[in-house]
Amino acid sequence: MTLVACIGGGQLGRMLGLAGLPLGLRFRFLDPSPDAPAAAVGDLVVGAFDDPAALARLAAGADVVTYEFENVPVEAIGAVAPLPPPLALELGQDRLVEKQLFQRLGIPTARFGPLAQTGLPALVKSRRLGYDGKGQRRLESDGPVGEHELAEEIIAFDRELSIIAVRGRDGETRFWPLAENVHRDGVLRVSRAPAAAAPQGEAEELVGRLLDELGYVGVIALELFEVEGRLLANEFAPRVHNTGHWTIDGAVTSQFENHLRAILGLPLGSTEAIAESVMVNLIGGAPPPGQLLRLPGAHLHLYGKEARSGRKIGHVTLVGATEETIAEAIALVDAAADG
Amino acid sequence: MTLVACIGGGQLGRMLGLAGLPLGLRFRFLDPSPDAPAAAVGDLVVGAFDDPAALARLAAGADVVTYEFENVPVEAIGAVAPLPPPLALELGQDRLVEKQLFQRLGIPTARFGPLAQTGLPALVKSRRLGYDGKGQRRLESDGPVGEHELAEEIIAFDRELSIIAVRGRDGETRFWPLAENVHRDGVLRVSRAPAAAAPQGEAEELVGRLLDELGYVGVIALELFEVEGRLLANEFAPRVHNTGHWTIDGAVTSQFENHLRAILGLPLGSTEAIAESVMVNLIGGAPPPGQLLRLPGAHLHLYGKEARSGRKIGHVTLVGATEETIAEAIALVDAAADG
Repeated sequence: MTLVACIGGGQLGRMLGLAGLPLGLRFRFLDPSPDAPAAAVGDLVVGAFDDPAALARLAAGADVVTYEFENVPVEAIGAVAPLPPPLALELGQDRLVEKQLFQRLGIPTARFGPLAQTGLPALVKSRRLGYDGKGQRRLESDGPVGEHELAEEIIAFDRELSIIAVRGRDGETRFWPLAENVHRDGVLRVSRAPAAAAPQGEAEELVGRLLDELGYVGVIALELFEVEGRLLANEFAPRVHNTGHWTIDGAVTSQFENHLRAILGLPLGSTEAIAESVMVNLIGGAPPPGQLLRLPGAHLHLYGKEARSGRKIGHVTLVGATEETIAEAIALVDAAADG
Repeated sequence: MTLVACIGGGQLGRMLGLAGLPLGLRFRFLDPSPDAPAAAVGDLVVGAFDDPAALARLAAGADVVTYEFENVPVEAIGAVAPLPPPLALELGQDRLVEKQLFQRLGIPTARFGPLAQTGLPALVKSRRLGYDGKGQRRLESDGPVGEHELAEEIIAFDRELSIIAVRGRDGETRFWPLAENVHRDGVLRVSRAPAAAAPQGEAEELVGRLLDELGYVGVIALELFEVEGRLLANEFAPRVHNTGHWTIDGAVTSQFENHLRAILGLPLGSTEAIAESVMVNLIGGAPPPGQLLRLPGAHLHLYGKEARSGRKIGHVTLVGATEETIAEAIALVDAAADG
């Protein structure tokens, strides 16, 4: 039986496992926590992401190694030859390098670099290890920007979009419809897909350049700002992505299944939406399941994590639901959330 | 975390687990085999179905006990108070008692009992432990019918149908669209749903009588023959059913998820079909996964079982596919099947 080894055993790993077991795959995960959510769907190696012995145990006998977490040390995991290719990780781990890559590929971004370029106020982000809005500050007046920071122009965007794409071993590429995303306090709250009146072709063209440049295999996410009809790239994630969770219930093939198909060299599945979907993250707490499950079109996804302040513990996706039902779901989720 | 205990750890248990993990459930299975397919999605107690100690270990700390296998000894499992109620098991385990139940509820069946009733040739079935066409013989001329056998009229049916229904703890009942089924050598090969021009209302009415009579909680399947526009009940199964596997990919809520919702007292999900689906069983062997996955609308489900003659090792469901694609899938599956 084909064995997939995955660096990281969080909810993304768990959802990869849920998508892959029906394909006849077996899973093994590497995670520092013995309570990793993915342990429900595979074997767990408890260890640090940069521990060569743990990585070797993870990869032993595996048909393919992948990752569900982008802040893995590239030097350490080179030995296990993961897909997507480590180059994608490496370039994406440093915001400056990432932005320079976008620039080189002609993918528009907000201005970045010296404050003379960005203007003031500017957004100063740590170059590494930032996620969910952490490691960001707003610079109102001229001030020091450290070597490990990057200043960016503050964009008055009309909306945030993201495109999830997948590229197979043979270079075949498919794109899910754009999602429209709402963040609060830097954390994704709601994704709607397919986004209304969205520049799908342009987004596909931009992420396509990235996929080809990186010789990519697997699922990638590109976050975009829409500003007066123009798209600016914000960042990419070389993995399955929270803004693609709607695809489990709302697309013919989910991002999780197509990621596995891609890295295993299997034919890709259709990325078509089956209806309009709205995904709402459950953060820090969740309503009793029955309250969500009674909503028509609701699909609940709990990650088996204990509720803790600000922690993503699940999501609910409403497929083909009315605006009234969607509003009700969001109100229920907001009332139970703590962060 | 809610713990579901399940008697039987075969593919039905595995698919219950795959449906239940996203609801935040944990699973424990009882199975005589240490290689039980459901072990991929929960803990496994290896033991006999009638071993009181094993049953006690299975049920310890569980929020609910259910079963995925109908030939479990009713006396033994009474102690763990499973849902669906053991009465359903008991009545369904003996073909004569089952037919008498249908008769009492005014659910039409083929004639059964003495050969004077059934006519000749007749189909003689063992009253207990028959499944997939095993334990059946055709009686051409007058001959002995044993005490543990039941003779039935041979029906020249137009087609075989089945209805899957679910009843909640509060008595709420929902029905999936009828499936049209093709058996070969007594084993299900293909289910199509929703069945064309099917007597949906009549089928719902018949299975509804059964659900109410049994005070049923969970998913039930009722197999039917259609004869010149009339429905005759063949048998029921008090569990999720092979002819309902299409609901995983082809309905808003699968039979597996709704079974769990029902036994846990959660609101039931919509049983609506999202498109026309065709499910094809993989028996004794399967084509390479890539051959099926390249077909538009194909969803593969492998059970993690070794291929063995006549063994159901998986199924593929085609959702919204063309007749040409369906024919191609069936040809691929037939070429790889051995039984």
